[in-house]
Amino acid sequence: MARNKKQKIQRPKALPPKGFRDYFGSEVTERGEMLRQIAEVYHRYGFDPLETAAVETVEALGKFLPDVDRPNAGVFAWQDEDTNWMALRYDLTAPLARVYAQFRNDLPSPYRRYAMGPVWRNEKPGPGRYRQFYQCDADTVGSASVAADAEICAMLSDTLETVGIPRGDYIVRVNNRKVLNGVLEAVGLPADDTNMRDAVLRTIDKFDKVGLGGVRELLGKGRLDASGAYIDGVGLSDDQAEPVLAFLVSKSDDAAKTLANLRDAVGNSETGRQGVEDLEKIGTLMAAQGYGSDRIVIDPSVVRGLGYYTGPVYEAELTFEILDDKGRKRQFGSVAGGGRYDDLVKRFTGQEVPATGVSIGVDRLLAALREKGRLGSVAKGPVVVTVMDRDRMGDYQAMVAELRNAGIRAEMYLGNPKNFGNQLKYADKRQSPVAVIEGGNEFESGVVQIKVLALGARLASEIETTEEWKAQPAQIEVKRTDLVAEVRKMIARAESQS
Amino acid sequence: MARNKKQKIQRPKALPPKGFRDYFGSEVTERGEMLRQIAEVYHRYGFDPLETAAVETVEALGKFLPDVDRPNAGVFAWQDEDTNWMALRYDLTAPLARVYAQFRNDLPSPYRRYAMGPVWRNEKPGPGRYRQFYQCDADTVGSASVAADAEICAMLSDTLETVGIPRGDYIVRVNNRKVLNGVLEAVGLPADDTNMRDAVLRTIDKFDKVGLGGVRELLGKGRLDASGAYIDGVGLSDDQAEPVLAFLVSKSDDAAKTLANLRDAVGNSETGRQGVEDLEKIGTLMAAQGYGSDRIVIDPSVVRGLGYYTGPVYEAELTFEILDDKGRKRQFGSVAGGGRYDDLVKRFTGQEVPATGVSIGVDRLLAALREKGRLGSVAKGPVVVTVMDRDRMGDYQAMVAELRNAGIRAEMYLGNPKNFGNQLKYADKRQSPVAVIEGGNEFESGVVQIKVLALGARLASEIETTEEWKAQPAQIEVKRTDLVAEVRKMIARAESQS
Repeated sequence: MARNKKQKIQRPKALPPKGFRDYFGSEVTERGEMLRQIAEVYHRYGFDPLETAAVETVEALGKFLPDVDRPNAGVFAWQDEDTNWMALRYDLTAPLARVYAQFRNDLPSPYRRYAMGPVWRNEKPGPGRYRQFYQCDADTVGSASVAADAEICAMLSDTLETVGIPRGDYIVRVNNRKVLNGVLEAVGLPADDTNMRDAVLRTIDKFDKVGLGGVRELLGKGRLDASGAYIDGVGLSDDQAEPVLAFLVSKSDDAAKTLANLRDAVGNSETGRQGVEDLEKIGTLMAAQGYGSDRIVIDPSVVRGLGYYTGPVYEAELTFEILDDKGRKRQFGSVAGGGRYDDLVKRFTGQEVPATGVSIGVDRLLAALREKGRLGSVAKGPVVVTVMDRDRMGDYQAMVAELRNAGIRAEMYLGNPKNFGNQLKYADKRQSPVAVIEGGNEFESGVVQIKVLALGARLASEIETTEEWKAQPAQIEVKRTDLVAEVRKMIARAESQS
Repeated sequence: MARNKKQKIQRPKALPPKGFRDYFGSEVTERGEMLRQIAEVYHRYGFDPLETAAVETVEALGKFLPDVDRPNAGVFAWQDEDTNWMALRYDLTAPLARVYAQFRNDLPSPYRRYAMGPVWRNEKPGPGRYRQFYQCDADTVGSASVAADAEICAMLSDTLETVGIPRGDYIVRVNNRKVLNGVLEAVGLPADDTNMRDAVLRTIDKFDKVGLGGVRELLGKGRLDASGAYIDGVGLSDDQAEPVLAFLVSKSDDAAKTLANLRDAVGNSETGRQGVEDLEKIGTLMAAQGYGSDRIVIDPSVVRGLGYYTGPVYEAELTFEILDDKGRKRQFGSVAGGGRYDDLVKRFTGQEVPATGVSIGVDRLLAALREKGRLGSVAKGPVVVTVMDRDRMGDYQAMVAELRNAGIRAEMYLGNPKNFGNQLKYADKRQSPVAVIEGGNEFESGVVQIKVLALGARLASEIETTEEWKAQPAQIEVKRTDLVAEVRKMIARAESQS
C-alpha cells in the first residue's frame, strides 16, 4: 500500500505563526495617522522621540514583565552564536531604563521621551489577543516632582481629544499607591508582611463584584459565595478592617471631600498622609491649567496591576457604552494607564532614579474610534484607467501620469486586459470612484469615457426621482484634454454626496 | 584572599545586543517624515499598505535570504513551546509572498502593495552595518506586464524627488535578466550548466575592476593579477567570449543604440531577444509619461545580486559625489533596487505568480539627504518655563498650558529648582529658543522675563555692530498677559535670522 501512495510535495503553509496577524490598507494608515497625531501632542509637551531596537539582551530586560514571576517567561528569547540570550522587548519601559542608564550623562535631566512601536508577548493568544501589538508611551525620567505626573495626566487628556474622543466620553482617573500603602499601615500590617498585604489587596479588587458588605466579610472571617461555597476570610478584626472600608467608599463628586475621606482612612500613617498630599497637589496643578473634573478626577479605586508603581497611578477610561459580544451594554473601559516607578534604572546603576509615565493601548483606542464611527468613512480607491488596446499602453500610462501629477490617485489596469468585464470588476474591488475608458474610436475622436463606479452605485440606490438620476450619469464622454478636470469634478461630486 | 573579596553585586550591562542601536530625537522624526512622504507617492500610484508581523514561521520564510545557501542562516530564529521554529523576517518580500498565497482569493489582482518597517539579519555587524534596519518596499503581484516594471521605475523616480533628491542627482537604471541569459545562450552555455554560468557572471562583475581586456583574459585562459598571482580563466574560446564582451560595451547615451547593441550581443537567443524587446517597451512607456534619460536609463551593467530575479531589474543610484572615510571622492551609490521575480508565491501554492517590486534602503537615503544638508536644519527645542518659586508651580504650569494651547512647544522645568543655573543649562541642552522667568517681584508687577537662549547665543556671535546687538536683546521684560504673543515673536525672529 505504502508504495502506491503518491509522492506528496511538501509545501509550506501560507499562515503567520499562531497569535500573529496582518494589517491591510486603512488598518495601517489609520494607525499611522493616529500615532502621528499623538506624537504631535507629545512633541508640544516637550517630549522627544526614542526608537530602540526590537531586540534586547535578556539580562537588560530583567524580569519585569507584569504578572510573571519566572525570568524570561512570557518573552520570545533565543541564544545567539556567543550563547548570549536575546529577546524581543515585551514593553517600551524596560528599553527606556536601559537607554537612560547607558546615556544618562548625555541626556537632559529630567528626560522626557516618547516611544511608539510593536512589543511582543509569548503568551497564549486568544480572540482579539495577539502576541505582537502596538504601544505608545511617554515617560519623564529624573523628576521626583508630582508636577511630572500631573503633566502626563494633562497630556493624556489632550491626546484623547486630539485623536477624536470628545470631552465627556473619557475620564482620566488618578490615585496614589502611597495612599493604599497608608491604608495598609493603618490596618496595622507591617510593610514586610507581603502575604497579608497581598491578601488585603486581592480583597479590595473584589469590591466591584461583592460590594462593601462582601469585602467586610472577606476581610474578616469569610463568606458564602453565590454558589454556596464558603470562602475563607483574611482574618482581620473589625477595627483593622475599618480603614480599608473607609478607603473603598472615599470617592466623592467633590475632590476636596474625597481627599478628606482619604485623610481619615490613612489615619496616622505618614506614607498615607504624604500620598494624600501628593494627590492634592496634582489636583491644584490640574486646576491651574484649566483641567476640571470633567476631564481628570481623583479616584481611589484605581489600583493598576503592576507591582513596580511607587506613587501616583493614573488611567484613562472611555465612558461611552458599547454592546459586548453577548449584546449587553457595557462601558468601553480603559485605553491607557501608567504611574510613577522609581526602581527601573537602579538595576543598572545602583542609583534610584524617579520616573513616571503612561502607555496608550493603541489598538484599543483605534477600536474605540471605529466604534464611534470616527474612522474609515470613505476608503479612497484609485481612478482605474482601463486597457482597451494593448498596443496603446503608453497612451493609458500617460493619462495615469497626468492624473497623478494633478494629485489624483490613479493606476492603469495591469492584469490581462482581454476580458473588459474583469477590468471593471477589479476597479470595483479597488473601490475606485471612476474608471476611464478609451477605445480606438474614442482615441480617434480625441475623447474618453468616464464611468462612475462604487460611489456612483451607492448614490444610485439613494436617488429617488428620474430627474435626480439623470443628473447622475453613470458614464459620460469628455474631451481627452479635459480628462483631469472632469475626473476631479466627478470625484468631488461623489464625495460631497456620500 | 577570596574570603576578603567584597561581595560584588552583579548588575546587568546597560547596552543593546551587539549590532543593534538606538535612534534619538530628530533621527526618529526625520525617518518618520520620509516614510510618510514615500507612502504618499506610493498611495498616489494606487499601492495599498500592508503591515505583517515581525515574526514568521521558518517554514514560510524559506531559504530566500540573498547570498545565503543554508536554510535559516542569517536569520534570528527560535523554537516555540510546540517546537515549531519561528524567525524574525529578514526582508519584506518573503512575508508578502506568504500573505498573497494566504489571501489570494480576497486580494485584488493584480495586487499593488507597499510595506515599511524594520527587518533583521543575523549577520556579523560592522561599522554602519546593523542587524536591524528599515526597508520600504513596493511590489505588484499578479501582473506579467512590463508596464508593471515601468510603473515602479517611474514611481521610484518620483519618490526620490519627493523626499528631496533633485533631478540630476540620481538616475534609475534598468536592465533585464533575460538579456543576460540571452548572452549566456549566445555563448553556448546550456541553462543547466550553472557552474559555468556562475563563473561567467562572476567575471562580468569584475568589469569595473579589470576592464574589458581583463575580462577577455579571465573569460579565456586567465591572467596575472596586480599582485603577480595567476588567476585561472573560465576557459571560453575567443568566439564564445565575444557576446559577453559585446554586452559589456553595449551601453550608449542613445537608448536606441544601446538596444541595437544588445540585440547584436544576444544573437539568435530567443530569451535574449525577448529581453531586449521588454527593455524597449519599458523605454516607450517611460517616454510616454515624460520620463527622459535624465531620470531613467537602460543600463546593461545592472546585474543585482539576488538569484530570484527573472526579468527586468532596476536600481536607483545617487550620482553626486561625497568624501569617503579616507577623504577620497566617490559617488554616493545605490539607494534602491528591485526587479521581477516569478517564483516566490509558487512555493506555497504550486502556481507561478508574476511579481515585480522595489526596495528602498531608507537609512542610506536618509544619510544621503543629511549629506546634502536637506535634513536637520534647526532642531526645535521647547520653550522652558523656569521655576523660581516652588509654591507657584500652578502658575508656571498655567503659562506652559497657554503656550501649548497656542501651538508653541513648551515645558516647565521638572528637575530640582534650587539651582537656577542648572535650569538654564537644562534649557540650553534642550536647544530651547527662549526661557521664561517669573520671580516673586515679577509676579507682583504682572510681568515676566523672556531670555533668549541657544539661537540667541548663535545670533550674538554673528552680530557685528552695537546697534544690531541692541536690537537683539538677550532678555526682555513683557507683560504677563502678553506672554504668548511675545514668545511667538521672539521665536519667529530667531528662526528668520538663523
